[in-house]
Amino acid sequence: MTNSFHPPKRILLGPGPSDVSPRVLEAMARPTIGHLDPLFVSMMDEVKSLLQYALRTSNRLTLPVSAPGSAGMETCFVNLIEPGDQVIVCQNGVFGGRMKENVERCGATPIMVNDDWGDPVDPNKLEDALKSNPEARLVAFVQAETSTGAESDTQTLVEIAHRHDCLVIVDAVTALGGTPIETDKWSIDAIYSGSQKCLSCTPGLSPVSFSDAAIDRIQKRQHKVQSWFLDLNLVMGYWGGGAKRAYHHTAPINALYGLHESLVILQEEGLENAWERHQRNHEALRDGLEAMGLSFAVHPDYRLPQLNAVQIPDGIDEARVRMDLLKEYGIEIGAGLGPMAGKIWRIGLMGYASNARNVYTLLGALENTLAMQGYSLKHGASFTAAHAAYEASA
Amino acid sequence: MTNSFHPPKRILLGPGPSDVSPRVLEAMARPTIGHLDPLFVSMMDEVKSLLQYALRTSNRLTLPVSAPGSAGMETCFVNLIEPGDQVIVCQNGVFGGRMKENVERCGATPIMVNDDWGDPVDPNKLEDALKSNPEARLVAFVQAETSTGAESDTQTLVEIAHRHDCLVIVDAVTALGGTPIETDKWSIDAIYSGSQKCLSCTPGLSPVSFSDAAIDRIQKRQHKVQSWFLDLNLVMGYWGGGAKRAYHHTAPINALYGLHESLVILQEEGLENAWERHQRNHEALRDGLEAMGLSFAVHPDYRLPQLNAVQIPDGIDEARVRMDLLKEYGIEIGAGLGPMAGKIWRIGLMGYASNARNVYTLLGALENTLAMQGYSLKHGASFTAAHAAYEASA
Repeated sequence: MTNSFHPPKRILLGPGPSDVSPRVLEAMARPTIGHLDPLFVSMMDEVKSLLQYALRTSNRLTLPVSAPGSAGMETCFVNLIEPGDQVIVCQNGVFGGRMKENVERCGATPIMVNDDWGDPVDPNKLEDALKSNPEARLVAFVQAETSTGAESDTQTLVEIAHRHDCLVIVDAVTALGGTPIETDKWSIDAIYSGSQKCLSCTPGLSPVSFSDAAIDRIQKRQHKVQSWFLDLNLVMGYWGGGAKRAYHHTAPINALYGLHESLVILQEEGLENAWERHQRNHEALRDGLEAMGLSFAVHPDYRLPQLNAVQIPDGIDEARVRMDLLKEYGIEIGAGLGPMAGKIWRIGLMGYASNARNVYTLLGALENTLAMQGYSLKHGASFTAAHAAYEASA
Repeated sequence: MTNSFHPPKRILLGPGPSDVSPRVLEAMARPTIGHLDPLFVSMMDEVKSLLQYALRTSNRLTLPVSAPGSAGMETCFVNLIEPGDQVIVCQNGVFGGRMKENVERCGATPIMVNDDWGDPVDPNKLEDALKSNPEARLVAFVQAETSTGAESDTQTLVEIAHRHDCLVIVDAVTALGGTPIETDKWSIDAIYSGSQKCLSCTPGLSPVSFSDAAIDRIQKRQHKVQSWFLDLNLVMGYWGGGAKRAYHHTAPINALYGLHESLVILQEEGLENAWERHQRNHEALRDGLEAMGLSFAVHPDYRLPQLNAVQIPDGIDEARVRMDLLKEYGIEIGAGLGPMAGKIWRIGLMGYASNARNVYTLLGALENTLAMQGYSLKHGASFTAAHAAYEASA
């Protein structure tokens, strides 16, 4: 016989999932009601409004896809691409590569704009690609690359794409709630995110939003969307608003309770305050880590506050550090991916987890763990530096 | 500002979601840990074993898709179909129609075997279709049609399909946990279900399982699976077992806690005991409803115990009955769909909700609600009949 599962309490400082607010966990345990219950339908309307708030948009097609961020990505691609299209994909990490896979599986041709991992997308390269490929209909890129911790300049990239008559898909999985996103002001056509990063919710839902131009393209498609589950023409009937909801699929009721609560919390704090909090805790962590002699993999100009890519010092067994942190302190940090495997740690300070207690706890735990491997540092210097950073920002 | 959402406690006696065990809700509120945490990976292994138990299979490719049942359906179709294939789809309700949509969106040709809504799939018609279409590679049907409450004979249908060298996809969304399914004994090649019916879990996950013959077909595909998110060649790297898990997408951690707990509960009760319980409560409900003068839409020979399709008496405003039950008693029952809209109610007794208290509560509430519309019945007769049914089965 298998017993009930009782997970330990971790401190989730990896690339996500991040720590979930106790209020969100409590909300998820509330009684399940039907997906067509009038009270549930009202709650869906609130989730939509709250997502519009978080994404800074009045897009009517704004909803959480009933599956993780990867499915949100796929929702954008399968609805906006038709077979034979040319799509410009900017890649500077893992998730640009996944975009390429999505384009190919839609029967379209990806045109790649490559930048080094850890660098942002280069606007000049995008412009060149658009000039060389006048038939391209769509541009896609990642605002906040979870695999590297680098941020790209969404506003500039969207402007360039629009000048060349392309719609734009923006990956905001790690960005949303942690760093500014202006869906309407920047004229983003399609954007997707995840519940488990800076929104402090559990994984499993993917907020998406589409401009009127994007909706127009979806409604004028020549081919049916290849996924029935993700076909927005059908999903709109359920999430589109109005009293009459057409049954499409059974919504993940309790997961949506959690997302609702996480967005209520974000609204209570205020979006700008959340951005500032992420920046403040990042600066304290940065100063603490630098006082330990560690350095960042990403240039300060495009470094994400919510995801810190930290260089692994010579001679350190990085997997052992992560395992020690997990076993001895209950702290999870992330490993590097692809070309950055073994070269960086990814330290997330996302959502609920972005707070001073976690910064101090991690600095202390990392100091001890590194010292056990003979890494030379001055004990306590990191605390002093982090504390000074907080004082300076107070 | 939007406030936290506090749903009422309903009694969910519709077509699903059904009532969720309090143990499952409690499990979902446990601390989130990382999807690559060694303890989470152990829990995943347990979920796999528990699903093998529930599905009566030793299939190594057995896992919960990270999205609702519709995505489980799509997982089966996009992985097993290649463009240009001929696929036989048996339709006797809503979900056969959705299968047809899936086949078409995979670039394949559906060959329909139609039966009336409320009837099971006719094995002779399937045999005829297979004889007329010797190039067909795949057969798909629904074991327990949630839209009608009719059960088809999976064992016989699979035998016929295999004789004609077809693989078989079985929809077990409403069946699993409520009525016998023998994945291995009946040689089912691909099966999908949902968490929110007879498993008493919240909606949002879709257990699937694939035979070795199905895996072989997936691995020998000529074309990439059109969905990156649902590509089992990739998903297998994460759920496939072994110490090394390849990151594919972020699993819905807390939803999986819930599914784990619901399967632990099923194992504690015993699968056969759960089947018997569903049958026993169905018989009491049936006798009670018949004592009220109501009748069933489905012939007794293929009537599902967990989903009761009940004819609406002449002169009754069926939507008002449903609204009264919801508002006055907190009870949700389902409306008819498609050609059965306005003709039937769908009363579910699924999973945790299949118990004597709910049977008695529904009978009393329905009696009162119908009486308010002038329906003539002998008050109390339904209780006596249900009680007698329980006595007889004790």
